Amino acid sequence: MKEKLDELKGLLTEVYDLEHVGALLHWDQSTYMPGGGAAARGRQSSIVERLAHEKMTDSRIGRLLEQLQPYEESLPYDSDDAGLIRAARRKFEKATKVPSSFMSKLISHQAETYQVWMEARPADDFSKVRPYLEKTLEYSRELAAYFPGYEHIADPLIDYDNEGVTASTLRQLFGELREQLMPLVQAVAEKEPVDDSCLKQWYPETAQWDFGLDVIRQLGYDFHRGRQDKTHHPFMTKFSLGDVRITTRVRENDLGEALFSTIHESGHAMYEQGISMDFEGTPLAEGVSPGVHESQSRLWENIVGRSRGFWEHFYPKLQKVFPEQLGSVSLDTFHRAVNKVQPSLIRTAADELTYNLHVMIRFDLELALLEGKLDIKDLPEVWRERYRSDLGIAPKDDADGVLQDVHWHMGIIGGMFQGYTLGNILSAQYYEAGLKAHPEIPDQIREGKFDTLHGWLKENIYRHGSKFTAQELTERATGSPLTIDPYIRYLKNKFGEMYSL
Amino acid sequence: MKEKLDELKGLLTEVYDLEHVGALLHWDQSTYMPGGGAAARGRQSSIVERLAHEKMTDSRIGRLLEQLQPYEESLPYDSDDAGLIRAARRKFEKATKVPSSFMSKLISHQAETYQVWMEARPADDFSKVRPYLEKTLEYSRELAAYFPGYEHIADPLIDYDNEGVTASTLRQLFGELREQLMPLVQAVAEKEPVDDSCLKQWYPETAQWDFGLDVIRQLGYDFHRGRQDKTHHPFMTKFSLGDVRITTRVRENDLGEALFSTIHESGHAMYEQGISMDFEGTPLAEGVSPGVHESQSRLWENIVGRSRGFWEHFYPKLQKVFPEQLGSVSLDTFHRAVNKVQPSLIRTAADELTYNLHVMIRFDLELALLEGKLDIKDLPEVWRERYRSDLGIAPKDDADGVLQDVHWHMGIIGGMFQGYTLGNILSAQYYEAGLKAHPEIPDQIREGKFDTLHGWLKENIYRHGSKFTAQELTERATGSPLTIDPYIRYLKNKFGEMYSL
Repeated sequence: MKEKLDELKGLLTEVYDLEHVGALLHWDQSTYMPGGGAAARGRQSSIVERLAHEKMTDSRIGRLLEQLQPYEESLPYDSDDAGLIRAARRKFEKATKVPSSFMSKLISHQAETYQVWMEARPADDFSKVRPYLEKTLEYSRELAAYFPGYEHIADPLIDYDNEGVTASTLRQLFGELREQLMPLVQAVAEKEPVDDSCLKQWYPETAQWDFGLDVIRQLGYDFHRGRQDKTHHPFMTKFSLGDVRITTRVRENDLGEALFSTIHESGHAMYEQGISMDFEGTPLAEGVSPGVHESQSRLWENIVGRSRGFWEHFYPKLQKVFPEQLGSVSLDTFHRAVNKVQPSLIRTAADELTYNLHVMIRFDLELALLEGKLDIKDLPEVWRERYRSDLGIAPKDDADGVLQDVHWHMGIIGGMFQGYTLGNILSAQYYEAGLKAHPEIPDQIREGKFDTLHGWLKENIYRHGSKFTAQELTERATGSPLTIDPYIRYLKNKFGEMYSL
Repeated sequence: MKEKLDELKGLLTEVYDLEHVGALLHWDQSTYMPGGGAAARGRQSSIVERLAHEKMTDSRIGRLLEQLQPYEESLPYDSDDAGLIRAARRKFEKATKVPSSFMSKLISHQAETYQVWMEARPADDFSKVRPYLEKTLEYSRELAAYFPGYEHIADPLIDYDNEGVTASTLRQLFGELREQLMPLVQAVAEKEPVDDSCLKQWYPETAQWDFGLDVIRQLGYDFHRGRQDKTHHPFMTKFSLGDVRITTRVRENDLGEALFSTIHESGHAMYEQGISMDFEGTPLAEGVSPGVHESQSRLWENIVGRSRGFWEHFYPKLQKVFPEQLGSVSLDTFHRAVNKVQPSLIRTAADELTYNLHVMIRFDLELALLEGKLDIKDLPEVWRERYRSDLGIAPKDDADGVLQDVHWHMGIIGGMFQGYTLGNILSAQYYEAGLKAHPEIPDQIREGKFDTLHGWLKENIYRHGSKFTAQELTERATGSPLTIDPYIRYLKNKFGEMYSL
């Protein structure tokens, strides 16, 4: 059996390596590639993607998985080998259930849609993307149909990356969350708005860049296995467990932009860097779901990076870097500025309290589209209505409305957004569990020490990679299934104190 | 036939794309990859290389080439389609004559040898690489044996990249060249040494970098289809005809280092950028041989970049960038400094007159090794002897002796070095032909205009890619087969004047 397992691992490593070569092609395209390289890069990405898919659907993998089943059943559930076989089987099934012909059709459609969106958004022209989105909706339904037996048509699309999650559980969860969030948002809205002008001064790029790197080095991002480069949209990408890179963008008139995106992406990266090196080259060497991934970016960005204790340590250092800008700004003013709550139009720039409302709007619209209750042509207007009713403001144009997020324009409709809110919920649940095990963590953060927190996360989350499902992982790490209670406690505490609610 | 040709092109483009993905993996490894990425990068390069080789040896290519033969024969020799079929056939034969099992054995051996050399050179420890080089010599003989029917065992290794060139033609050529070079070198040696201390002052990196970029932009390097990054060893690499990048290194205490390597690599790059875009994705989209490639790097670096006229235009600009360092240094002093002749130990740093002596030493040693007249174990001592007799100096250690060049430690023995000297010879032959067509070129260079020269090179050399062999290309461009006469004229003129010989 050892031999068969090694053979399986060998085949999986080829897939793994090709997938990560694809990631490098994309990273280079976003960071350093000159414009003239675009046409060939499209070809290169597509052949590498195709070869990875061909290798993942190789019938030898199917045969080995069958042959290994008795071995798998003889193992304890939490053994690495059992986890590997489970993860490989799930990956094989996802890859083989969808015909290659459909996948390549979908991939070219996505590439085309993305190109159209790139022009439509600055031109504020929804009519350009409309026919493409209609096709995307069609394809999304078709994709779901390859996984029959669902209750809601969105279920297979959600399950695709978030194993075991369904539309109905999300609906209930989001309903409860909304009920708790709305009174908080309204209470804050009645208070004096926070002044965050201290963040909007002139902050030279290099000094911002270096400060950000110093911060994440201290949090535990390993530069021997990573680096940061500049891109238009920040992201984390991985070429192997030994090479997990992040990107950011710098705005010289907004201190928050680069700093918090650097911390955010370093959270994603520390998750990947923390995966057991034994898993390298296998489907286990990957964060388990978008939700758990986002829990780590948000935990480090918000729960840690926007906490009072964090800035008790870092603010004097920041003041030294920018004495003219911040020398006379108090810690309290600064801390309130980086936590300012204000309903806004753009999801990615939203504060912690209103952020999830943005996600819920998209989630509801996705379900309505898939159910056939909403037409693509009516999206812009329905979008505006929902923003008016949920956030009290509405975009003047579609550029800052329905066209703002790239997801629908480079992916499928359904299963794209809920990871962000699941991540927020989980970030608090994990942090609370870490605190329970190590009540000294907040004091350590005040001293600029992050080893205990980082260590707990690594031990309980990171190192497992994709060995357990997100649900299993959460239960093992926190002793409870996913629950919004810690998240609500966290928000009430933090913003209650800050706004004297 | 059109259909079969398109099918062939489709298959060749897959190979092309995979090969250039491999180039990106290597570029990233040399520029930005963090140390932790090395292990996986080895795997990634090797699977991409293997897939490219598998696709190149696909029997469908062989069948199509057979089927297309009548079509090829019906075409004029210089038609693009005929050139494509010729180039594809040669590539297919090179790929299929050598068994894949041998190739992968060789490639891993090369990777291993390279790792060992990386440690052996700084440690000045030839004994470490010795067993690896012995294996390399064995493999080199084995590789040659896959191409039977040669006169000299080095012939297939030379022909592999330099189609049609043999050991015996090179021996004769190099013999003639040496006869002409030695008196020149000796005559210069009797003169007062040139003072190049003006180059060895402190030159801050950013200013050097920017000046170099300005220079090559003016020469005609297209930044929309390229960029320059930093590496330990400068090189040119291509990911498609739309993305041809160069790298350099900067020494703040040596102005010549970055500047001339930037010009050198831009010469390689302008060759690739100048290939007809119609050839993109085919084996024609590549410089035809190392010799012709080097002719372009050396033409721009030496014949143009170290000429008096070039500096009449650029020196005042350089003085403005570095007024403290160069404000009181005359153009004459500077021009003599960048052309200083002095026998030295390191090939890559050698001046124009002695450079070829370095190449000839390596060439002779390669032949002796392959012929079995020289043992690897005796290399260091024979190396020292040859340097003493040819250049009048000998390295104190092996680090600056037999260990200095990477070629034997990452490739094969035989066929590795002669391209450098062929390039020098051809650079002068091409330049002379360009001048004959456009006698105004030297005056234009004095005015900082390079369009006419660049245009002539593009028209007569660059655009053809690999459509003709190096010999055909040279005859078409200059009306004569390769000859050392223009090169000797160039050297005698330039150094005769400079040293009043």
